[in-house]
Amino acid sequence: MTIKTHILQQARAARGGALKLALCSTKDKDQALKAMAAALLKNAAVILKANALDVAAGVKAGLKGALVERLQLDPKRVKAMADGILDIVKLKDPVGEVLDSRVRPNGLRIDKVRVPIGVVGIIYESRPNVTADCAALGIKSGNAVILRGGKEALNSNKAIYQALKGALAGTRVPVEALQFIAVAERTAVLELLKLDSLVDIIVPRGGEGLIRFVAENSLIPVVKHYKGVCHIYVSASADLAMAEEICFNAKVQRPGVCNAMEKLLVDEKVAKRFLPSMAGRFRGAGVELRGDEAARRIVGDMHKASGQDWYEEYLDLTLTVGIVKGVAAAVDHINKFGSRHSDAIITKNKKEAGAFLQGVDSACVYVNASTRFTDGYEFGLGAEVGISTDKIHVRGPMGLEGLTSYKYQIYGNGQVRG
Amino acid sequence: MTIKTHILQQARAARGGALKLALCSTKDKDQALKAMAAALLKNAAVILKANALDVAAGVKAGLKGALVERLQLDPKRVKAMADGILDIVKLKDPVGEVLDSRVRPNGLRIDKVRVPIGVVGIIYESRPNVTADCAALGIKSGNAVILRGGKEALNSNKAIYQALKGALAGTRVPVEALQFIAVAERTAVLELLKLDSLVDIIVPRGGEGLIRFVAENSLIPVVKHYKGVCHIYVSASADLAMAEEICFNAKVQRPGVCNAMEKLLVDEKVAKRFLPSMAGRFRGAGVELRGDEAARRIVGDMHKASGQDWYEEYLDLTLTVGIVKGVAAAVDHINKFGSRHSDAIITKNKKEAGAFLQGVDSACVYVNASTRFTDGYEFGLGAEVGISTDKIHVRGPMGLEGLTSYKYQIYGNGQVRG
Repeated sequence: MTIKTHILQQARAARGGALKLALCSTKDKDQALKAMAAALLKNAAVILKANALDVAAGVKAGLKGALVERLQLDPKRVKAMADGILDIVKLKDPVGEVLDSRVRPNGLRIDKVRVPIGVVGIIYESRPNVTADCAALGIKSGNAVILRGGKEALNSNKAIYQALKGALAGTRVPVEALQFIAVAERTAVLELLKLDSLVDIIVPRGGEGLIRFVAENSLIPVVKHYKGVCHIYVSASADLAMAEEICFNAKVQRPGVCNAMEKLLVDEKVAKRFLPSMAGRFRGAGVELRGDEAARRIVGDMHKASGQDWYEEYLDLTLTVGIVKGVAAAVDHINKFGSRHSDAIITKNKKEAGAFLQGVDSACVYVNASTRFTDGYEFGLGAEVGISTDKIHVRGPMGLEGLTSYKYQIYGNGQVRG
Repeated sequence: MTIKTHILQQARAARGGALKLALCSTKDKDQALKAMAAALLKNAAVILKANALDVAAGVKAGLKGALVERLQLDPKRVKAMADGILDIVKLKDPVGEVLDSRVRPNGLRIDKVRVPIGVVGIIYESRPNVTADCAALGIKSGNAVILRGGKEALNSNKAIYQALKGALAGTRVPVEALQFIAVAERTAVLELLKLDSLVDIIVPRGGEGLIRFVAENSLIPVVKHYKGVCHIYVSASADLAMAEEICFNAKVQRPGVCNAMEKLLVDEKVAKRFLPSMAGRFRGAGVELRGDEAARRIVGDMHKASGQDWYEEYLDLTLTVGIVKGVAAAVDHINKFGSRHSDAIITKNKKEAGAFLQGVDSACVYVNASTRFTDGYEFGLGAEVGISTDKIHVRGPMGLEGLTSYKYQIYGNGQVRG
């Protein structure tokens, strides 16, 4: 069979599975999730054996330590995957919620009801736990899922998938609702991305390169999350002690993630009071500072920021620092250089806070808090499929609701149009 | 200037305009709309003169009567355009609505607030009134709009656009928020569709060919509406007199629109009682019937339906008729051949109605009413930008809310992540 035919068959099976899954009750879906969690534990030895193959191949191919660490499973991690599925059982089923109901003058009742999207394609990189997480999130929200993991984790993913699929056999959730693309060639992804009549949405999870590749080749809508170039603006009306704590947390607590601060903007009126102490604190934590001219006049040992620095997502202990004049200039700067992810203002002035909240065109805009809170769990969404820096369909943390659409259900008693 | 540079400049201007427009109040926007309506009336003579050029060129090029009729303006139609804008003034501004608000255990307040999408590209065919409608809907919802009309209406659209743009000059709505692509070459559209960092969404309005061209060439999310292959299923538990009225209305009242019935499915248990009378009624209205074998055994003079007939959107007095066995078979048939637009069941049985509502994977699913009601005005949305048969972002009639996104506004008092 050609790769094209193979992928087409999987997508068709997923579409059929989605239509059946849409008829399942919350109880049906939760029972399937419990069976999936149990199957992971039962098949732990098989999964770990498959994982050992991937890890050995990775080490042989010269994969870096951090990447091997991401790939590697152990009994504790398999248990964590199973527990993750059981956590999803506890979440509220978003399907069936009536979002709006109105009765028209002609007596028609029009209900807007939350429904699954249908078929969701998830394309991800090395971590094998994504296979279990996304399968579970998909089923809880009533969607068939087509999974495509990274080739480094192929054996692990296959073993996890077999366990999950096997678990579905004894439940009311159709086995076809879970598909895994085991073809290693990238052509498989290209073929999938053409099937806009069978797949409703694509969620790529990984680096900017993967996301661009998917977005440029897809006929199917893609939820995009290119990068997090997050700013904090310390206004002239800031509580400077609070500002220092928040900035330190946003930069240093976990620098390798998308909601960490990458750019610090300080108002010219407080820069001399704020920057020296802040810079000392950062220096102590090993943060490399790159400043514009005005910032370097205050803190002499900063490196000089290049034009490119303002666009860069370092994901590391590096920070660009600039001086701005007032909230409007900060907003303009962020809208020009930012990535529409998460940005914060530190201020005691409500009017300034309001201008910042309204003006900054980002998914998450903060007043007096760290940007690090942009996360489905922290937001109380219960789960996170990913984060969207798009403005279409879903924005910011994507929870179970992000995996739903709606339909109109209209009740009449013979109405015809005049 | 190359076409590429030209389109890039317009998109950049629109992006800048969008950021300023996002700061405008409802009052600012409504004042701009009123000025736009007044400008259409004031410039009616100029608009009609430009339109006469288009009509003359169309007639010379052999444009069909119905298309010339669509293109042609007169003082009454200009007045109707202005009135249409004043109707939009009366609609509720969707921007600023708090969709959700939650306080987290750490004290963070997270508000999910409705905001404009940003920059909306609208690509449409011949009717010049779309220029005014879409400009007004865009501004009311706080979006910058890039308009690209059909080449047959280029002079008319330019004149309308000049009037609208002139009106903005005296208001708080930035002139850059309204862009019109006057370059006739199709390359202009292709260049626009590449600008995914400047344009947030594309709404194509027109035939299937236009929509496919846009969808296949766009890096920007596209709201798609390919076709309306609407079904009515007359169940064994139907009130047959009601079924006949609804089917007649859905097919005959306005056959050329997307929410007209194209396929009639009749349950085998009532086909002999229902079809002969229904067929007679259709025959009297000049409807050509194409039936499957079972239907033709009941109504002998039906044409034979081909396999392709089941997928076809006739937009004409033609109807495909089939006999099915029970609601589950009807649902399967509709999900296989339908276009996810609007489908109805006629039944007195609540359980059957529920199975149909849940099982049919379409934007609008009706019980005991005509599919002809799928329309933003009929649904009480106040306006219609278009209809979506996609399941992402917006589904079914697209009103002002379909032109919005949301952002999270987070209020803290120094929270950092532990």
